[in-house]
Amino acid sequence: MKLYNVAYSGNSYKVRLLRAQVGIACDIVEIDILQGESRTPEFLKINPNGRTPVLDDNGFVLAESNAILAYLARGTKFLPEARKRWALVFQWMFFEQYSHEPYIAVARAWLHVFTGRQVEPDRLREKMEGGYRALDVMERHLADRRFFVAERYTIADIALYAYTHVAHEGDFHLGRYPHIRTWLARVASQSGHVPITQREFD
Amino acid sequence: MKLYNVAYSGNSYKVRLLRAQVGIACDIVEIDILQGESRTPEFLKINPNGRTPVLDDNGFVLAESNAILAYLARGTKFLPEARKRWALVFQWMFFEQYSHEPYIAVARAWLHVFTGRQVEPDRLREKMEGGYRALDVMERHLADRRFFVAERYTIADIALYAYTHVAHEGDFHLGRYPHIRTWLARVASQSGHVPITQREFD
Repeated sequence: MKLYNVAYSGNSYKVRLLRAQVGIACDIVEIDILQGESRTPEFLKINPNGRTPVLDDNGFVLAESNAILAYLARGTKFLPEARKRWALVFQWMFFEQYSHEPYIAVARAWLHVFTGRQVEPDRLREKMEGGYRALDVMERHLADRRFFVAERYTIADIALYAYTHVAHEGDFHLGRYPHIRTWLARVASQSGHVPITQREFD
Repeated sequence: MKLYNVAYSGNSYKVRLLRAQVGIACDIVEIDILQGESRTPEFLKINPNGRTPVLDDNGFVLAESNAILAYLARGTKFLPEARKRWALVFQWMFFEQYSHEPYIAVARAWLHVFTGRQVEPDRLREKMEGGYRALDVMERHLADRRFFVAERYTIADIALYAYTHVAHEGDFHLGRYPHIRTWLARVASQSGHVPITQREFD
């Protein structure tokens, strides 16, 4: 198995984290987005949408971080089988990609990754507002829950952890989110957890 | 079963379309976003994220259009069971929510739904460019395929059909996308198909 990976990307980190916890061996191919490596004709043959991460499972190519999580988690404890719990895991993963990542990950990218570029204040304000809206929804949900779905650690937690735990790099302050902070610590204490900064694989 | 629905919304239409094809009875509760009905305290109790559609299956509440599709399609021919095909359906549904809907649906909303408001030309240009990038990816994929996954009509097609078939309402021109146009006609010819304008249910 091969993962086209961006070291600092939360979307890539999701896959690395699940992979460590499921115990799947996987070669890492580092893609340098800043050098345009996700837009080369070669890479566009792998993913025509030009995005990372991409999984290559012995010739079967799969894009979209949360689809990769679902693929690797199917049949494991990280994706509950019972229909309603299963659907709620997907609900939160779609929430993450639509209402969370486009704000928190993008603000972080602007402020922490692509630091040389000019950021328009109006655009950044929008990202901050959208990010806090997502955090508000998470905080409320976690007020009386240990994890997002079924009181168990699932790929819904992995998907939401990826950019929430580095939200401060996008200037988000988690001070008024005690339940999120407790949940972040709970996720980080799960067996087999690896940090986003871990560069060594296998 | 009850669906909190927005008549003109492609995201709500996805659920109405699958529902018609699977043959599920479902009450429709119309939500008037323009009147703020998706942000009332009452609605936020149903979906704290304040978005539509939301399914209420006898007390089990599920948000996110594509998660609702997955929930209703599980165990039917609309969601293949084989692991790789299953994962590709989710890949395309995440593509739809991240790389397609935020451009094409938003441009359509600005130009066709919320028509009284000022649209910033720079923002609209971004939406158009992003939308055409998504259409390029779809056109390339459909060049030698009848449907998005496994040469079968699945919820990946339903998810992508919803806003693609009304993309012209966002000023997108499909003239240079012959494969998409053929696929749109193919989807519309599926048994049990209902148009987005259909206001009668059951």
